[in-house]
Amino acid sequence: MSDDFSEKFFQYVDERKGLYIERLAEAVGIPSVSSELDTHLPDIVKMMTWTKEHADRLGAKTTLLPNPAATPERPLPPILLGEFHVDPAKKTVCVYGHLDVQPAKKEDGWDTDPFVLTEKDGKLYGRGSTDDKGPALSWLWVVEAHRELGVELPVNLKILYEGMEEFGSDGLFECIKEEAKEGKFLDDVDFFCISDNYWLGKTKPCLTYGLRGIAYFELQVQGCEQDLHSGVLGGTVHEAMTDVIKLMGTLVDSNGKILVKGVMDDVAPVTPEEEALYDNIEFDMEAYKEESKVSSVSNKLLHPDKKSLLMHRWRYPTLSLHGIEGAFSGPGAKTVIPSRVIGKFSLRLVPDQKAAQIESVVKEHVEAEFAKLGSPNKMSIKMSHGAKAWLSSPNHPNFQAASKATERVHGMPPDLTREGGSIPITSAIEDATGMNVLLLPIGACDDMAHSQNEKYNIPNLTNGIKVLGVYLHEVAKIEGPKPSTCKCVPLTEEELMVPGAFMKGFRCKCEI
Amino acid sequence: MSDDFSEKFFQYVDERKGLYIERLAEAVGIPSVSSELDTHLPDIVKMMTWTKEHADRLGAKTTLLPNPAATPERPLPPILLGEFHVDPAKKTVCVYGHLDVQPAKKEDGWDTDPFVLTEKDGKLYGRGSTDDKGPALSWLWVVEAHRELGVELPVNLKILYEGMEEFGSDGLFECIKEEAKEGKFLDDVDFFCISDNYWLGKTKPCLTYGLRGIAYFELQVQGCEQDLHSGVLGGTVHEAMTDVIKLMGTLVDSNGKILVKGVMDDVAPVTPEEEALYDNIEFDMEAYKEESKVSSVSNKLLHPDKKSLLMHRWRYPTLSLHGIEGAFSGPGAKTVIPSRVIGKFSLRLVPDQKAAQIESVVKEHVEAEFAKLGSPNKMSIKMSHGAKAWLSSPNHPNFQAASKATERVHGMPPDLTREGGSIPITSAIEDATGMNVLLLPIGACDDMAHSQNEKYNIPNLTNGIKVLGVYLHEVAKIEGPKPSTCKCVPLTEEELMVPGAFMKGFRCKCEI
Repeated sequence: MSDDFSEKFFQYVDERKGLYIERLAEAVGIPSVSSELDTHLPDIVKMMTWTKEHADRLGAKTTLLPNPAATPERPLPPILLGEFHVDPAKKTVCVYGHLDVQPAKKEDGWDTDPFVLTEKDGKLYGRGSTDDKGPALSWLWVVEAHRELGVELPVNLKILYEGMEEFGSDGLFECIKEEAKEGKFLDDVDFFCISDNYWLGKTKPCLTYGLRGIAYFELQVQGCEQDLHSGVLGGTVHEAMTDVIKLMGTLVDSNGKILVKGVMDDVAPVTPEEEALYDNIEFDMEAYKEESKVSSVSNKLLHPDKKSLLMHRWRYPTLSLHGIEGAFSGPGAKTVIPSRVIGKFSLRLVPDQKAAQIESVVKEHVEAEFAKLGSPNKMSIKMSHGAKAWLSSPNHPNFQAASKATERVHGMPPDLTREGGSIPITSAIEDATGMNVLLLPIGACDDMAHSQNEKYNIPNLTNGIKVLGVYLHEVAKIEGPKPSTCKCVPLTEEELMVPGAFMKGFRCKCEI
Repeated sequence: MSDDFSEKFFQYVDERKGLYIERLAEAVGIPSVSSELDTHLPDIVKMMTWTKEHADRLGAKTTLLPNPAATPERPLPPILLGEFHVDPAKKTVCVYGHLDVQPAKKEDGWDTDPFVLTEKDGKLYGRGSTDDKGPALSWLWVVEAHRELGVELPVNLKILYEGMEEFGSDGLFECIKEEAKEGKFLDDVDFFCISDNYWLGKTKPCLTYGLRGIAYFELQVQGCEQDLHSGVLGGTVHEAMTDVIKLMGTLVDSNGKILVKGVMDDVAPVTPEEEALYDNIEFDMEAYKEESKVSSVSNKLLHPDKKSLLMHRWRYPTLSLHGIEGAFSGPGAKTVIPSRVIGKFSLRLVPDQKAAQIESVVKEHVEAEFAKLGSPNKMSIKMSHGAKAWLSSPNHPNFQAASKATERVHGMPPDLTREGGSIPITSAIEDATGMNVLLLPIGACDDMAHSQNEKYNIPNLTNGIKVLGVYLHEVAKIEGPKPSTCKCVPLTEEELMVPGAFMKGFRCKCEI
């Protein structure tokens, strides 16, 4: 991007701030909650269509691909594919985003209606504002800016937007495998970029080269066919809650230690190269206590120093107990014996853990613990979704392009970070296409994705659009042939895991 | 009641079946959920007013007494007092009922809208149909029948109806103490009757002379100020769910054994007289498995024989885990670290347990277990309501009157039973007035109070009205002075508890 164009582009974006907020408000107003398909499938479809119409207006060739995992019994939202500008001489960037959101109810403790975007003190409160509607839609506004300023896009841009991310991305993995085949939508993509995670802090941007995976479990116990009165029947039946509580209590201790045998078996050892990376990271323990909202309660974190805390957030597995479905969950008192309860918990996976191995050891553990209880109730456990961790390289040209774009907009180079969360699609894209995936977060660490009062800072909204725009110009400058034309053998998983290898950004033999 | 009048009365009731169902449908249509005052207080008030208007129409002198426990910050529904017919020469019967209901949502697993009374196969499905709108309103229809048949009520009848029973009867205890004072509403009452429990089976009626008490606990753990993303922050904070699950897991085992030290200290020993009572009770273990809805799941009860099962239902304490407030409770997957969670559990208390002693040992236990966890999270535990157990005498004239009325309507004498549930008001009335309280259930054992698909059989509705009507005539025949005029010293709690004493129905020295 020439300095001349970038100045015009930045000014254009700043002037459109109000318009971007209006459009985000429209999008947030569509409650596209993917974990509640029974009621919200039409909202997700509406959100996909709303986005398609904007892309069409901006000159894209779009398709609403029927979800390959949909069945007549379980309809699913389509996947939105689109391409802007097609010039075989140029590099092709594909960006991924999701248009569905986590559940949210005012009574969960939101200060405002979660589905009404509300501006306060330069922040935009609403479910999906930062995760991921705000960032995902920003790509469209980058295209719009180029059109209105009369400047050609420096790369071919493809969009891949789904509506099931918050519930395991049903159908997307099949779609990616299919579209990565020769001659299909993803075959000519040279670089991927995803903006669906967060800065490490509130003010300093970062690029993310590692993510944890996930294994989400549902542990069901049934004692009887329907709920009973605890006074009338208490003392005569084996209660399902007793069992589910006991079982959930065997999984993790109050210091976060996972008690399931075999879970730590495959965790990669820490190498000196990796350990050194942590030294330079800007990270303030006291600020983190504020962000994690513990300062006013216990003011204590699980680990006492920066390095061990970040390692437990990024490169060690964790286990969280999320809740129980089927039991009493309202305020006040209800004297019920719940008949069928489902304990929900998940593990975050790290290199080199595999979801299937975790599923196996968790099942074995829960079954052994259940046998100890001597309960005649019916117990079953299933892994509802699983995805391995992901590790890339901050030295890859794709990351370097993003680093330059960030510095151009923010005046400082980004931190190089990993993340505790999971974006399973990252590994899936790399595995299917062999191309590099960049995680380019534009939201702040305290945006409260998945929580009450999720928000998106107005400066992050405008600066985000600027960074994404400049990034496309930086990608266009990358030297050498289009990576998608390289027919070289990709490195094996083992070769990539050789200490230090991932740091150099190698993805295939020709890069060595 | 003369045979002549009773025949006319029975025929009158049978002919009005449709009208009674219509009125019950109106009442069930008012969602008077007392555990959700924030949204349903107006509905409870509406339900109280609806009932008052019927009582007024039938000639009662009524008062909506402001709830004595209400504050400007926490308004509460009024208490409805009414009196029909006042003749100082006649005995005075006061009946208690409640017009509030348990929470209910279609998605909890109801086959029909819980607040739309739905008739199917001779059963009336709806929240509050049997607990306690159906029975409570029946007294009004008894009065109506007497008026329309031109027969004077054989006793003075008073009604005492509240709207907070399912949430601890806030304000009612103060009201009863106040109204029991000389010259006030309850001072001249000779006999009390409550229809708010259930038969032991589906077809044979019973009278209930014992109830368990309750101690309901809320165990709160807070780890941070608001919910967090388990991927982004998992592994760095002490999670509240881990602690609350661990603590709830220390309370009871999968065989129903209470693990809290000191809970069993005050449980009355089983006497031979009491033990003998169990032998004659009609009770079918296989039918009970059906009723308790375990037959299609494990087909196993906690105890293998009639006597031990009924004892654990009626005269031993139990502990049930009801659920967790503040955690994820919906279907599907949510990757949340809940910030503040409240475990709900309750114990059913038996003679001679006291709620205050139970509160003390439970708190001590939970605090000791929490200390073992080494968690920096904030934990607090409170007993949100507590009530001691109640034990009366099946030989008291009040019970004998009900026994005769039951036999007249059903052609068989009632079983004499105790119950696992709690109706704390029973002891409160006895303690404040010194008069006998009769529990005269008219609903069947499988009515599913507090559960999904609560129902009221149409024969129970009509026969219930008949039994209550005949009961008033039988009370009128009781010989001797009005008990409320006896100024004799009541027996102490210890004297009443002498083995066998309660069987003879002694309440005061003059009865010995």
